[in-house]
Amino acid sequence: MPTTPPRPIIGVFDSGFGGLTVLRALLRTIHGAHFLYIGDTARLPYGAKSRATVSRYAVESARLLEFRGAQLIVIACNTATALALDDIRAAVRVPVVGVIEPGADATAAAIANSLGAPFMEQSDITGPQVLVLATDATVQSHAYRAACSTLGLRATEKACPLLVPLVEEGWTDHPVTREVIRIYLREALATCTPRGVLLGCTHYPLIHSAIETELHALHASAVVIDSAQATASAVADELRTLRLHTQLSATASTFDCFATDSVEKFQRLGSHFLAQPIDTVHLLDLGG
Amino acid sequence: MPTTPPRPIIGVFDSGFGGLTVLRALLRTIHGAHFLYIGDTARLPYGAKSRATVSRYAVESARLLEFRGAQLIVIACNTATALALDDIRAAVRVPVVGVIEPGADATAAAIANSLGAPFMEQSDITGPQVLVLATDATVQSHAYRAACSTLGLRATEKACPLLVPLVEEGWTDHPVTREVIRIYLREALATCTPRGVLLGCTHYPLIHSAIETELHALHASAVVIDSAQATASAVADELRTLRLHTQLSATASTFDCFATDSVEKFQRLGSHFLAQPIDTVHLLDLGG
Repeated sequence: MPTTPPRPIIGVFDSGFGGLTVLRALLRTIHGAHFLYIGDTARLPYGAKSRATVSRYAVESARLLEFRGAQLIVIACNTATALALDDIRAAVRVPVVGVIEPGADATAAAIANSLGAPFMEQSDITGPQVLVLATDATVQSHAYRAACSTLGLRATEKACPLLVPLVEEGWTDHPVTREVIRIYLREALATCTPRGVLLGCTHYPLIHSAIETELHALHASAVVIDSAQATASAVADELRTLRLHTQLSATASTFDCFATDSVEKFQRLGSHFLAQPIDTVHLLDLGG
Repeated sequence: MPTTPPRPIIGVFDSGFGGLTVLRALLRTIHGAHFLYIGDTARLPYGAKSRATVSRYAVESARLLEFRGAQLIVIACNTATALALDDIRAAVRVPVVGVIEPGADATAAAIANSLGAPFMEQSDITGPQVLVLATDATVQSHAYRAACSTLGLRATEKACPLLVPLVEEGWTDHPVTREVIRIYLREALATCTPRGVLLGCTHYPLIHSAIETELHALHASAVVIDSAQATASAVADELRTLRLHTQLSATASTFDCFATDSVEKFQRLGSHFLAQPIDTVHLLDLGG
């Protein structure tokens, strides 16, 4: 009698809660797998920190996920992807998927769709414009500009440091948040006319519709894209490449959460990002 | 010929930049000393983290300051004082001064002054009310409530998580910041009628006048106190107790800054908090 092969184990990590929007998309897209999620909440946020520090933290999480059996690692954090993708790939032996390339790909596809025509033959000087909203560290890395450029898109990157604290305060539908979004968008739209707005931070899907509303109020007709779903699709593709998809089943995927700070807070705040209850969170010591 | 005694060395630490408002008051108040300042910027902010994590981080900074020769340590951080004062005192052999007790003392004095009469004979049930604005972790510790209670003051503690990011964004004189202050104050004033408002976070001195303005716009006649100057006075007293004041001179104090993340960012952002240029910042590895 053949034994059932074990479920593929997929590791996912972020500085805290934002990456749970990526886990949410992964759970929706991929069935029959087991996810390990690390939120490095004792050292969050990464978005205003230096490349050396973010890289050191991210490599610790990635190594731990590999040690715990992850066959594929997802960096569910734009800052860590922007600053540390190469370091993480060098530190582990399993494949690593970040959020930036899938996000840029999805944006290119959405813009081509909205234009009703491909634009790949254009150069990144004359190609369609994209506005990337992200943390300070992600913007300063220019990782999105580079990823968009290879797709023929011209990216303008705008740092929006207040949006993460506003989302974490729970003010996702609040006049102050709308006002802050309006200020950031007005500043950005003074220098570009984007066809697409890419949400380059895993917190921003929670204010997706607020960003869309303010964008339209400023008479910009850009399509708004978040990278969570695009990343989930890229992970599904990677599972096929690795031939792990044969081990998937139709049953819902399962997940385990680990946090480096208060597990109670992770359960409480994390549930909003994951849009479902988180029953158990394990406390994790990364030595920081 | 008698040798000149060495300058007293005073250690000061915070999760990042806010404690520089305390260092600023210390430099103004105490001449002829040498200050060592640690900003644990790689792991900031502390304000939303758990007691265990904040305590671990704070003890590491305090131990390092003692190792580097500090004869007195100042916790220039409300959250670390609220959550870890006892742990820090147990971890080092030199005296430790926090910001909470001096802040509460200064508030009691200011209220007594504004009333034109002492109130110490009143109990903390009937005593004057104080509104404490602070981070989430400081509020949840109720350290201010306890410190105020021993002085016959009734404290209402209000968490204001967005004020630190707004100050760090540089929006110290901005309509959004005023609106956020108004929202927090309106919520707090619905439950108390304070004679004093205590700024229980070292970032808030940078928005002292905005808080005062919004408070008066809401027809509250409370006096606004920040603990930086009160802490500097407590440190001067402690130097006398330790008989270190005999080693002070009339020359300006000097200082060295250490940061656990980008030294460039510390120089740039820190100068606003210190209100003077920071020439040199040393990179420090606390192992986190």
